[in-house]
Amino acid sequence: MSTPKYLTGDVAAINEFIDQFDVFLLDCDGVIWSGDHVFEGIPQTLELLRSRGKKVVFVTNNSTKSRQEYVKKFTALGIPSEAEEIFGSAYSSAIYISRILKLAPPKNKVFVIGEAGIENELRSENIPFIGGTDPAFRRDMTPEDWKGIADGTLLDPDVGCVLAGLDFHINYLKLSHALQYLRRGAVFLATNIDSTFPMNHNFFPGAGSMSMPLAYMTGQQPLALGKPSQAMMHAIEGKFQLNRERTCMVGDRLNTDIKFGIEGRLGGTLAVLTGVSQQADWEAADAVAVPAFYVDKLSDLGAAARVDTQ
Amino acid sequence: MSTPKYLTGDVAAINEFIDQFDVFLLDCDGVIWSGDHVFEGIPQTLELLRSRGKKVVFVTNNSTKSRQEYVKKFTALGIPSEAEEIFGSAYSSAIYISRILKLAPPKNKVFVIGEAGIENELRSENIPFIGGTDPAFRRDMTPEDWKGIADGTLLDPDVGCVLAGLDFHINYLKLSHALQYLRRGAVFLATNIDSTFPMNHNFFPGAGSMSMPLAYMTGQQPLALGKPSQAMMHAIEGKFQLNRERTCMVGDRLNTDIKFGIEGRLGGTLAVLTGVSQQADWEAADAVAVPAFYVDKLSDLGAAARVDTQ
Repeated sequence: MSTPKYLTGDVAAINEFIDQFDVFLLDCDGVIWSGDHVFEGIPQTLELLRSRGKKVVFVTNNSTKSRQEYVKKFTALGIPSEAEEIFGSAYSSAIYISRILKLAPPKNKVFVIGEAGIENELRSENIPFIGGTDPAFRRDMTPEDWKGIADGTLLDPDVGCVLAGLDFHINYLKLSHALQYLRRGAVFLATNIDSTFPMNHNFFPGAGSMSMPLAYMTGQQPLALGKPSQAMMHAIEGKFQLNRERTCMVGDRLNTDIKFGIEGRLGGTLAVLTGVSQQADWEAADAVAVPAFYVDKLSDLGAAARVDTQ
Repeated sequence: MSTPKYLTGDVAAINEFIDQFDVFLLDCDGVIWSGDHVFEGIPQTLELLRSRGKKVVFVTNNSTKSRQEYVKKFTALGIPSEAEEIFGSAYSSAIYISRILKLAPPKNKVFVIGEAGIENELRSENIPFIGGTDPAFRRDMTPEDWKGIADGTLLDPDVGCVLAGLDFHINYLKLSHALQYLRRGAVFLATNIDSTFPMNHNFFPGAGSMSMPLAYMTGQQPLALGKPSQAMMHAIEGKFQLNRERTCMVGDRLNTDIKFGIEGRLGGTLAVLTGVSQQADWEAADAVAVPAFYVDKLSDLGAAARVDTQ
């Protein structure tokens, strides 16, 4: 593997880098922001890329928000955006279910483990679902549940798919239902299988914490629709008609973002050091992925502006 | 591997089998009962073994009940028993923590994921704990939780161990606390890591569903104190001073019970066909364990009574 090229402070190299691509796929957490704190200079950097005619797509594994909810977050943080520029794992999952999986009715209902973001994206693709944020599933097991789940009388015969994403209201009842649907042959999908969820400069249980128990119980791995799964790349490519050679993936995590770009045979990958992975991670002998380029922070690309306006 | 000897209907073989052992370690679910249904002839079979001077120990991975609660269940099902004859994974865990782990105070508190059975056994060994069935942990996350768990102000600095068992009230709050304690160096224990929990002739999420997400998040496997972990065998041996050569493990699952007996170098293992594993499982090329003996059902040993009373 070659050594990644360091761009920070090298205006000529930055310009050459930007000119190589038409599309930038940008991870959000650890690149654009950390939680609710947007990194300095980000709005200007995005504006620079757009002013040069580049397409910017925000690609995130966080399934708790729908695209509309992301637009609200971007706006609140002072970053102009459109729903069309946002590609989350909830949306990726909905696209996969409606356009690739194409379950035949009536057995086309999805049992959802997850939050409203998933539900909103399923609705946008007219996919029927149960579970999710329904209060009927946010409670303790009752004797009737133990009986009705076991004998199937409390199960919906139309469920043909289990979709597991990050669920802040995960419980035994939801896991029990999901297990039975999988045992009855439902397709097993996960929005993403991130082990942890970054928040407040620390880590909380990630979406993988919802699907891993089900994988352990059933001996079956879910198809993950988030990075680094190439199912997400196919969905992005289908939507934006991008030329992979002229596309660059930008992210902070080697095992999701950079791996995603490399396995997707994109023209380039750019690592930023404002998130999880650091230089030592790709210099390690067992590095999971090595980026083609790296900068200290995304706004370092802003140095190109000086050349641009000469 | 040799072929297991089939004992059902062979009175001479049954007598020879029983005479080889002083102690019988008996799994409960799938051997003695299925859920709340006790198999026919079980009380008489246990009485036969006892009348021949055999020690009977009930060895179960179910951590939701304490020994005292098991005595109640046995009594309700018409099977005489004493707390001293019962060895569950909750008790095994408490013994391990108090007698082997011996955490130095003040950092000797246990964060419990699990039900009352674990709490009762920890109390019996005077082990301080938090979590478990405490209503303070049976609720949704609040903004204060996100903040206080991340910055540590809501964490108990005295927690030195996380013990994860089957918890019918598992939630995101408990998983978040457990993750932080593990990240701060707490010892990671599991009562057992059974993938599923048999109930009402079907399967529900097992204790492993609680520890697997934590293992996935931390990259650290728990030490399991239930079968087939030999930590449980050490605890049993320590308590009963058994002679392993003269001890037989009886169970329905190859991957827990029979494996447990073989790896513990017991004098024998007896499989029964009233539970999970079937003959085809040990005849398979990739069989996880092969028993030394098998019967259709445990009460088939009762045929020995006819000889005994001649």
